[in-house]
Amino acid sequence: MQIARVRGTVTSTQKEPSLRGTKFLVLQLIDEDGQPLPGYEVAADSVGAGIGEWVLVSCGSAARQVPGSEQRPVDAAVIAIIDTVGIENRLLYSKRDQY
Amino acid sequence: MQIARVRGTVTSTQKEPSLRGTKFLVLQLIDEDGQPLPGYEVAADSVGAGIGEWVLVSCGSAARQVPGSEQRPVDAAVIAIIDTVGIENRLLYSKRDQY
Amino acid sequence: MQIARVRGTVTSTQKEPSLRGTKFLVLQLIDEDGQPLPGYEVAADSVGAGIGEWVLVSCGSAARQVPGSEQRPVDAAVIAIIDTVGIENRLLYSKRDQY
Amino acid sequence: MQIARVRGTVTSTQKEPSLRGTKFLVLQLIDEDGQPLPGYEVAADSVGAGIGEWVLVSCGSAARQVPGSEQRPVDAAVIAIIDTVGIENRLLYSKRDQY
Amino acid sequence: MQIARVRGTVTSTQKEPSLRGTKFLVLQLIDEDGQPLPGYEVAADSVGAGIGEWVLVSCGSAARQVPGSEQRPVDAAVIAIIDTVGIENRLLYSKRDQY
Repeated sequence: MQIARVRGTVTSTQKEPSLRGTKFLVLQLIDEDGQPLPGYEVAADSVGAGIGEWVLVSCGSAARQVPGSEQRPVDAAVIAIIDTVGIENRLLYSKRDQY
Repeated sequence: MQIARVRGTVTSTQKEPSLRGTKFLVLQLIDEDGQPLPGYEVAADSVGAGIGEWVLVSCGSAARQVPGSEQRPVDAAVIAIIDTVGIENRLLYSKRDQY
Repeated sequence: MQIARVRGTVTSTQKEPSLRGTKFLVLQLIDEDGQPLPGYEVAADSVGAGIGEWVLVSCGSAARQVPGSEQRPVDAAVIAIIDTVGIENRLLYSKRDQY
Repeated sequence: MQIARVRGTVTSTQKEPSLRGTKFLVLQLIDEDGQPLPGYEVAADSVGAGIGEWVLVSCGSAARQVPGSEQRPVDAAVIAIIDTVGIENRLLYSKRDQY
Repeated sequence: MQIARVRGTVTSTQKEPSLRGTKFLVLQLIDEDGQPLPGYEVAADSVGAGIGEWVLVSCGSAARQVPGSEQRPVDAAVIAIIDTVGIENRLLYSKRDQY
């Protein structure tokens, strides 16, 4: 999985019918310090992540191991909203401190 | 998923028989501002995207979660024509403004 | 899928038994103008592509959606010999012009 | 698989329900000499790897070939704690020497 | 598939139980001229490749299309020991010449 920050949304009306109701988030990939990495991902979201939150994004067939998405043509999904990132026992990020 | 702009088409007569009837689009990968990224993708299209439109492309086994493509040897598919891309509540792209 | 030009072949006698009879082609990945990209792919071929031809290569589990390859440990396959590549209604490549 | 060094952990309460109980490790990808490579991975761990240990990380659908993770939306897993890395019959890394 | 040269081995005792008996090789990815490319792969081997040999490595779910590995969490496998690499009808590599 990669760490990412939620930046925005994508909307679409003309799409694969199975995608009806899927929420698409634009994610900025970041490193464990929160620095932006090259590359972004548009991911399906079912955990209810909001703009600015740090999330875990899972890519490939894993994105379809989410209830309701088993048959959807998605290759990336937000699977968790991150509470903390700890590196060598130092707390690098805490959601509590952000909000 | 990645955001891409439809640039052209690829045609083929000598191919895997299961690909008969598959439409192949040449997609330029772009970032959320519409700037071209290195790399392109040739993707199967079943949503009817046209030249210049912004689309979502899904790669890997997700490309076969499209009705009719379950048994086709495709690793990329256009899954949606994008209406809007919004970043931090600012509208970066709107299909309505383009046409 | 990526566009590639057939450059050569790989042969092997000591291999997974299921690969007996599989033809391996060395492919140069190219962009839509025919310029070589960094990276190559060795792909299973069942469409009968020859040296110099432009082909579509499909990677990942898609490579096993080819009759006879369902159980083969291949992660790339030639799925089509390209006739034409058209970009914004301009013909960039035509097999007919090459031969 | 890639070689990686365990650097830290990620915690989350709001996540896909199937991820309850999954331990997420932050891994620094390294080369066979232990030099850090660009890129990191957040991986599910069920082998009990600790900070500083060298591990093998497996990506993609392989991450769900771990008992208990078959239905989890994970795309990376720690599958082994490395004892030794030997290159051309020279021992480059030995866990025994580290602890 | 990619072409690679066998460089060494990785050993592990604390690992996913299904990996018992799996031999892990460290592979240097190379181009068709034998020049090292950035990146390496640790791959499961069941064809019996030795140090210095050129092999084909298959990544992703293909690595589990090897008898005995169907349920193993591996994302890369040596699937063939290369005899020859021929580019545009010129022999670039021949195992016979190396040994």
